[in-house]
Amino acid sequence: MNSDLQSLTESLRDFAKARDWEQFHSPKNLAAALTVETAELLEHFQWLTEEQSRNLPAAKQAEVAAEAADVLLYLLQLCDKLGIDLVQAARQKLALNAEKYPVDRSRGSSRKYTEI
Amino acid sequence: MNSDLQSLTESLRDFAKARDWEQFHSPKNLAAALTVETAELLEHFQWLTEEQSRNLPAAKQAEVAAEAADVLLYLLQLCDKLGIDLVQAARQKLALNAEKYPVDRSRGSSRKYTEI
Amino acid sequence: MNSDLQSLTESLRDFAKARDWEQFHSPKNLAAALTVETAELLEHFQWLTEEQSRNLPAAKQAEVAAEAADVLLYLLQLCDKLGIDLVQAARQKLALNAEKYPVDRSRGSSRKYTEI
Amino acid sequence: MNSDLQSLTESLRDFAKARDWEQFHSPKNLAAALTVETAELLEHFQWLTEEQSRNLPAAKQAEVAAEAADVLLYLLQLCDKLGIDLVQAARQKLALNAEKYPVDRSRGSSRKYTEI
Repeated sequence: MNSDLQSLTESLRDFAKARDWEQFHSPKNLAAALTVETAELLEHFQWLTEEQSRNLPAAKQAEVAAEAADVLLYLLQLCDKLGIDLVQAARQKLALNAEKYPVDRSRGSSRKYTEI
Repeated sequence: MNSDLQSLTESLRDFAKARDWEQFHSPKNLAAALTVETAELLEHFQWLTEEQSRNLPAAKQAEVAAEAADVLLYLLQLCDKLGIDLVQAARQKLALNAEKYPVDRSRGSSRKYTEI
Repeated sequence: MNSDLQSLTESLRDFAKARDWEQFHSPKNLAAALTVETAELLEHFQWLTEEQSRNLPAAKQAEVAAEAADVLLYLLQLCDKLGIDLVQAARQKLALNAEKYPVDRSRGSSRKYTEI
Repeated sequence: MNSDLQSLTESLRDFAKARDWEQFHSPKNLAAALTVETAELLEHFQWLTEEQSRNLPAAKQAEVAAEAADVLLYLLQLCDKLGIDLVQAARQKLALNAEKYPVDRSRGSSRKYTEI
């Protein structure tokens, strides 16, 4: 884990401990909270066209940034509870994806992830 | 953005570009994909007790790590498309939360987030 | 509750009882399972354009129907556990929405739900 | 489709048409909105124990009923746009599940859905 994410993780530990919230932070509950936060992020985009989603007004952009922050904060807490090194896991997944979706067979196909 | 996340973000850019997948990666679509991935993570916990979720078998732990990785990878791509500095946004959100949930009023309350 | 939904609800009760699955079906767990199923439904649409989503191939249409069915089955089980009359609740919500979004102020606005 | 759900579906059609909201209601967008609503429902349960989720206070119960209503209303609109008969799809899925999870092999197993 790199130093920025490590530092955020430690701040989150202190934050929960000071409020005695660790009792609520089982991995099961954190996974639910993480899903709720991503849906709040999705809510900002649900009625936009794809084109509109590429050109957010500044106020909307700031709201989306705050929701993205919430997603990261719950993801870090979940990984902390489970002893998962998030950056290492992401690197491994990226390497696996490179094998799973070879450039020559995947180019430009919208069936990319689930249906190849 | 710190160097590990920056490096992952650049790898993701190259990955999508090589496969001509940028056409699919509107912020709207990435927000949907992010939500789908968090739900896949939640699926691992849905029938477990909180206690079981704190003590995952090694095989389950590895599957959860791979789903957490997917969540981070989509979150980074979404922030990259929108020009959001994810680590900075997380630090700001943590500072806001410290104001919103003062230690003396929030201690041990399960109503913590939504109902105070 | 009308007779078709009542009949489905009773079949679901028998199904869970015969398998001794009631122990897993707390409202909390059913709400998580419901969210997971809607995300599986969303997954079918995540990389499609809106236009493509209006013209699904027959095989995709059948998969979406099966996911929609799963959503209804978990929603009925959740409402059954909580003693909620789903059709009555839906009628009440529709009446509330008619007050919340008056025709003359809501026409054609994409800000419709969250931002008016 | 039975008469209550048919009647709700027709009311939803009139509601969207009167507000010129049909332009926003592509299946893709409705699937996103459906997911957002189920996450709002899940939010009510995320910090509760399973036991607490079985014994909601009356005010919370009413909020959950309103969220469940929203889930049904979007699900009906999605099925209407796609020409899916929701009740028939649910009956078919229940029949498939009875084959997939035979009573004698599924009894009392928390691995029930995904891992058998």
